[in-house]
Amino acid sequence: MAKYGFGLDLGGTTCKCGLFTAEGELLEKWEVPTDTSNGGVNILKNLAQTVVKKMDEKNIAADDVAGVGIGIPGPVSDDGVVNRCVNLGWGVFNVEKEFSECLGGLKVKAGNDANVAALGEAWMGAAKEYSSSVMVTLGTGVGGGVIINDDIISGAAGAAGEIGHIRVNYTEENTCGCGNHGCLEQYCSATGIARLAKIRLAQNDDASSLRNVETLDAKAVFDEAKKGDVVAKEIARRACEYLAQGLQVISCVVNPEAFVIGGGVSKAGQYLVDEVEYRFNQIAFHGCKSTKIVLASLGNDAGIYGAMKLIL
Amino acid sequence: MAKYGFGLDLGGTTCKCGLFTAEGELLEKWEVPTDTSNGGVNILKNLAQTVVKKMDEKNIAADDVAGVGIGIPGPVSDDGVVNRCVNLGWGVFNVEKEFSECLGGLKVKAGNDANVAALGEAWMGAAKEYSSSVMVTLGTGVGGGVIINDDIISGAAGAAGEIGHIRVNYTEENTCGCGNHGCLEQYCSATGIARLAKIRLAQNDDASSLRNVETLDAKAVFDEAKKGDVVAKEIARRACEYLAQGLQVISCVVNPEAFVIGGGVSKAGQYLVDEVEYRFNQIAFHGCKSTKIVLASLGNDAGIYGAMKLIL
Repeated sequence: MAKYGFGLDLGGTTCKCGLFTAEGELLEKWEVPTDTSNGGVNILKNLAQTVVKKMDEKNIAADDVAGVGIGIPGPVSDDGVVNRCVNLGWGVFNVEKEFSECLGGLKVKAGNDANVAALGEAWMGAAKEYSSSVMVTLGTGVGGGVIINDDIISGAAGAAGEIGHIRVNYTEENTCGCGNHGCLEQYCSATGIARLAKIRLAQNDDASSLRNVETLDAKAVFDEAKKGDVVAKEIARRACEYLAQGLQVISCVVNPEAFVIGGGVSKAGQYLVDEVEYRFNQIAFHGCKSTKIVLASLGNDAGIYGAMKLIL
Repeated sequence: MAKYGFGLDLGGTTCKCGLFTAEGELLEKWEVPTDTSNGGVNILKNLAQTVVKKMDEKNIAADDVAGVGIGIPGPVSDDGVVNRCVNLGWGVFNVEKEFSECLGGLKVKAGNDANVAALGEAWMGAAKEYSSSVMVTLGTGVGGGVIINDDIISGAAGAAGEIGHIRVNYTEENTCGCGNHGCLEQYCSATGIARLAKIRLAQNDDASSLRNVETLDAKAVFDEAKKGDVVAKEIARRACEYLAQGLQVISCVVNPEAFVIGGGVSKAGQYLVDEVEYRFNQIAFHGCKSTKIVLASLGNDAGIYGAMKLIL
């Protein structure tokens, strides 16, 4: 039985790395820069180097390593083929095969980073008690991951868990980054909430403490809403209504035990959860009303945990 | 290796029964009435009788039977517990355990009937070539089933695949059978399409051949639309827009290889598929645009095929 494993969470700027026991205890974590020059040709070599260096440092033999899991910022098929990662400069190739070769044959499993983070929360985080969960990550965009029977649903084209692009408004005139109109991301991402706030404040001259904040962002909206500002509460409520609508449809499709809310916007905490839960309960199909809504608990480590879980 | 298996599709009026080879060839099918008297206490005994009788008739030994699969009109948990089937009079109990006892210990697997029909189409029907598919059954109501890696996703409370209750209209004032407002079922079921037609015809005095049909039902709407009636086309388009919206959100959640459209309304055939596909392609997330939309091919046999697959 192998005693150790590595979980890597590859981003466009750095790669977060974790050395784990096979039981899932995080022994050490560190970061290495991502070298995106020359179409990202050095990325896997550099990552192999940092893994091998850590094994040397800790006197870990290859036989003692269960494998290396890696989350990738782009679509990954079930057999390990990445399909263009714009942030890395990568085209189409089998990342599991190539990375394993760089690692002298160690087992490698790759997954989409948002899916892998969802797996991390399902394994060791907020959804630990549940065998099925859907994570919704409210960051600059809105990502997500669907976990059923402790495993990622990746989809025919790697597009399962693209929660941010569920259409929740049929009259939106602004265009989403994906080219569509009315995607959840346009209302519930950090950018989307700031956009809602800007539109609302321009509507009339209602007094609002939001008019005096230094930066009109999602954090300001939730901070002022918590302090009782009526306009901020209205904007927060609108974002939460859209999110609840997203959860309504997800629950009719896969009916998970829990929803995990993560990403920067989720720092709004229980206020956000309460607002979403209240609205979800109003519109959820009766068989789905018992679905738990919880805050992510692993923060930036969700990705390395999930990556480690990939190889178990 | 067992050579045979049984697939049963239990409804409130009759139970469809199929005798299959272990390879999935349907050797014989028949129906028996469902006795819903006394809280449905005789149902399993009667079904066990028809199975045993068939085994006697065909000289099939118990050892030669892989098991008996059964689709149930209500929620069924992964371990075989049914949770109230109003059409049968059943409460809460382990149907797999009880039915197996009635069958002298034969292996029994149970599933929700809509999910089981989806499994049947995925195994031997329209989605045979795909390992993931979502079936949408447009009948009196709208049901469905989500198949991933050739297996049913049943959900934490058996409510996965409740496609009919995806909320696709936020301003609906009429109430769905489930108590909510704006469910897909209110626009795409046979009943829903007839409702849309009635509302549209009452709006003004536009000439329409629909004003002369004997019964203003979903079939009439599609028949007249195919003949070119402008109002009928408008109603059909509206139903298909809602359905496309449902498929849009489903594909962002599980990104299946194919959608299978079944149920009575699907007799509208390629006209329906073309209308839905056109609108789906307009609003689908780019990673999901390649999803196939196909007509169900097993008709009323989907349930017995899926039930047989449950035990394999």
